[in-house]
Amino acid sequence: MIDEDQRHMAHALSLGRRGMGKCWPNPSVGCVIVKDGRIVGRGVTAPGGRPHAEPQALAMAGPLAKGAMAYVTLEPCSHYGKTPPCCDALIEAGVARVVAALADSDPRVSGQGFERLRQNGVEVTTGILAQEAMHDLAGFFLKVEQGRPWVTLKLAMSLDGRIATATGESQWITGPAARRAVHALRNSHDAVMVGGGTARADNPALTVRDMGAVQQPVRVVVSRRLDMPLMSNLAQTAKEVPVWLCHGPDLRPETRDAWTGLGAKLFPCHLSQGRVDPHSVLQALGQAGLTRVFCEGGGQLAASLLVADLVDELQVFSAGMALGAEGQPGLGALGVDRLADAPRFELVDVTVDGRDVRHVWRRNAAI
Amino acid sequence: MIDEDQRHMAHALSLGRRGMGKCWPNPSVGCVIVKDGRIVGRGVTAPGGRPHAEPQALAMAGPLAKGAMAYVTLEPCSHYGKTPPCCDALIEAGVARVVAALADSDPRVSGQGFERLRQNGVEVTTGILAQEAMHDLAGFFLKVEQGRPWVTLKLAMSLDGRIATATGESQWITGPAARRAVHALRNSHDAVMVGGGTARADNPALTVRDMGAVQQPVRVVVSRRLDMPLMSNLAQTAKEVPVWLCHGPDLRPETRDAWTGLGAKLFPCHLSQGRVDPHSVLQALGQAGLTRVFCEGGGQLAASLLVADLVDELQVFSAGMALGAEGQPGLGALGVDRLADAPRFELVDVTVDGRDVRHVWRRNAAI
Ligand SMILES: NC(=O)c1ccc[n+]([C@@H]2O[C@H](COP(=O)([O-])OP(=O)(O)OC[C@H]3O[C@@H](n4cnc5c(N)ncnc54)[C@H](OP(=O)(O)O)[C@@H]3O)[C@@H](O)[C@H]2O)c1
Ligand SMILES: NC(=O)c1ccc[n+]([C@@H]2O[C@H](COP(=O)([O-])OP(=O)(O)OC[C@H]3O[C@@H](n4cnc5c(N)ncnc54)[C@H](OP(=O)(O)O)[C@@H]3O)[C@@H](O)[C@H]2O)c1
Repeated sequence: MIDEDQRHMAHALSLGRRGMGKCWPNPSVGCVIVKDGRIVGRGVTAPGGRPHAEPQALAMAGPLAKGAMAYVTLEPCSHYGKTPPCCDALIEAGVARVVAALADSDPRVSGQGFERLRQNGVEVTTGILAQEAMHDLAGFFLKVEQGRPWVTLKLAMSLDGRIATATGESQWITGPAARRAVHALRNSHDAVMVGGGTARADNPALTVRDMGAVQQPVRVVVSRRLDMPLMSNLAQTAKEVPVWLCHGPDLRPETRDAWTGLGAKLFPCHLSQGRVDPHSVLQALGQAGLTRVFCEGGGQLAASLLVADLVDELQVFSAGMALGAEGQPGLGALGVDRLADAPRFELVDVTVDGRDVRHVWRRNAAI
Repeated sequence: MIDEDQRHMAHALSLGRRGMGKCWPNPSVGCVIVKDGRIVGRGVTAPGGRPHAEPQALAMAGPLAKGAMAYVTLEPCSHYGKTPPCCDALIEAGVARVVAALADSDPRVSGQGFERLRQNGVEVTTGILAQEAMHDLAGFFLKVEQGRPWVTLKLAMSLDGRIATATGESQWITGPAARRAVHALRNSHDAVMVGGGTARADNPALTVRDMGAVQQPVRVVVSRRLDMPLMSNLAQTAKEVPVWLCHGPDLRPETRDAWTGLGAKLFPCHLSQGRVDPHSVLQALGQAGLTRVFCEGGGQLAASLLVADLVDELQVFSAGMALGAEGQPGLGALGVDRLADAPRFELVDVTVDGRDVRHVWRRNAAI
């Protein structure tokens, strides 16, 4: 049974991954319904977070759900929120056994879903592929437990760790395959975030392109006084794709009104050492519902996040090119004097993306 | 036959690789003798370059060489040097067919070895696994054709391209497995080379340790005036393991005498822009017989070599650690303003060495 359980759970996890970046503030959950070894229903949390995965999978299964097994990546909900509880749907459909990867850490659900299923005669197994699920749902858990989203930091650099020449030329250091991988990463996050420096220097769009994206990530800029051109790509498209601006307490009212008028949403944050405090930024974004944030730099914002120990995963793209010490560093100053004090990461994956290498590191490889 | 030929040639190449770093000024050639599908002889160029691979393999095969096939990674020599020509040995032993990966580019041999074999009724096939052999023997070819050895540059850096903290702490950025891989790389090169800055800062030994090395690589330091402590590890061990010093024309006689007295060999080189000219250094090393040089930095010497387009292969070790912009850059200034002018490399290999990633790049992936 174990192998069978793992196989179906892996399937449910892969469904769940498809919804990443599209379900916030909810987690992207996958569900597979199996009857006599055959898959009769599949579901993933819908864009916007509703309907949940289970009712969609049950609807697909129809009467075949009776006596079937349901594989879900997260404990089914048991409380009446904006949707009726998924537990009740599973019970009513006559599902005989529910296999879950993880218990929910939302106090309104945790353990109560399993309890309700058992009380209604449904067999419950938990902990199947728990580690994989823990990683996939880490952003949701972080938001619930620490109030902040998961942060993935991208560094696309030359071999010697540079993101632009001395004169600021940065397009393109990495090749088309790596850039496509970056768009896929944007697509699997709730938001893309950059510092004011990058917003000013690159006039970026920060949208997902050529991926058939059903929902664009929110675009976040961190800048104390929001002194960025109002004719920029971000400003001019803020009504179509959300632009969220994390600024300091000393924003000028005219600037605030201009950005608000353009359709941007403003998040006042604390300062620390004269800069927008990264903890404050992430708390504000978590409060607003984000579970997964993809930071694309630049070097200064990336350094602030690392110093504050707020980077959960690093996606490093190394291009086969050297730019030398006069090039712009991929990471700003960290204030690290001793090797023992340097932020450290564990390798979780290495791939070749076209002509570039991608190495993925996590603060904690177990998550 | 083709698959069989490739299989045996791969074997011969792997034998040849064992001799790398130990045969200079000769190439490390591998030879396998096959009779009725069975391997009856094996040889690799001996340390110091003599005896060659073929006579050793023939000696092992004894009378079984008659009617056998000989797989050699390079065209057998046909001229009388310090050893009798290998062609004659093959002919005398009665070998029926010789399969070679490559023709020799030494004008005394090129094509003449094959010719002599054919004239004596030996069937000759060439070009089997030529590309692999081309890479393995590239140092030898470069020395013959351009007068300089192959240069492999090592960069062992933090994720953001730093090789030391601002205060100079650099031990250890990479883990034990990567450091072991570096010793294996030293072992497969004729010489290990560093700049004067690294020699002064790190007091390195630059020897191969814990690898059962039969022959230590030559240790090369590039420094205009050789102002390095005479009590350093290199100075004090120059009588046991060669120390070669590439210096500028303005060396003080006392310094020259001190180093010579310690057992170091001195190579006067030209200057360019106030520094020892890297072309001049490599020509001197090629003239002295080196075919493969492993440069371990530091950042300035590495930058000079890159700017002069003298780096054939990059061995980059990336550690899961960030040191920030104040850390010491792995590469010094290159004077690159435009991305189009940056030195470029093609990815040839990626491996995980313990907790670190190793990515290997070549100027020309076809070699
Ligand atoms: N190759 C790549 O993948 C890549 C990616 C990104 C950027 N880049 C390049 O990097 C360069 C920009 O890098 P950068 O380091 O100057 O810009 P950055 O990190 O994007 O922005 C730094 C600016 O962000 C604002 N900020 C607010 N709070 C901050 C905090 N806590 N920490 C750090 N910054 C904070 C500050 O500006 P305010 O005064 O507005 O607050 C600060 O000057 C550009 O040349 C761009 O092309 C390359
Ligand atoms: N993590 C690692 O793998 C690693 C490896 C190596 C070094 N390091 C670190 O790197 C630092 C030293 O780096 P560095 O860049 O200062 O030293 P470097 O490149 O080893 O040496 C630079 C010096 O070499 C001499 N030189 C002569 N000709 C040259 C030429 N054509 N180009 C460049 N240099 C030439 C010059 O000194 P003269 O006045 O003597 O001519 C120059 O100052 C140390 O802190 C060391 O620990 C780390």
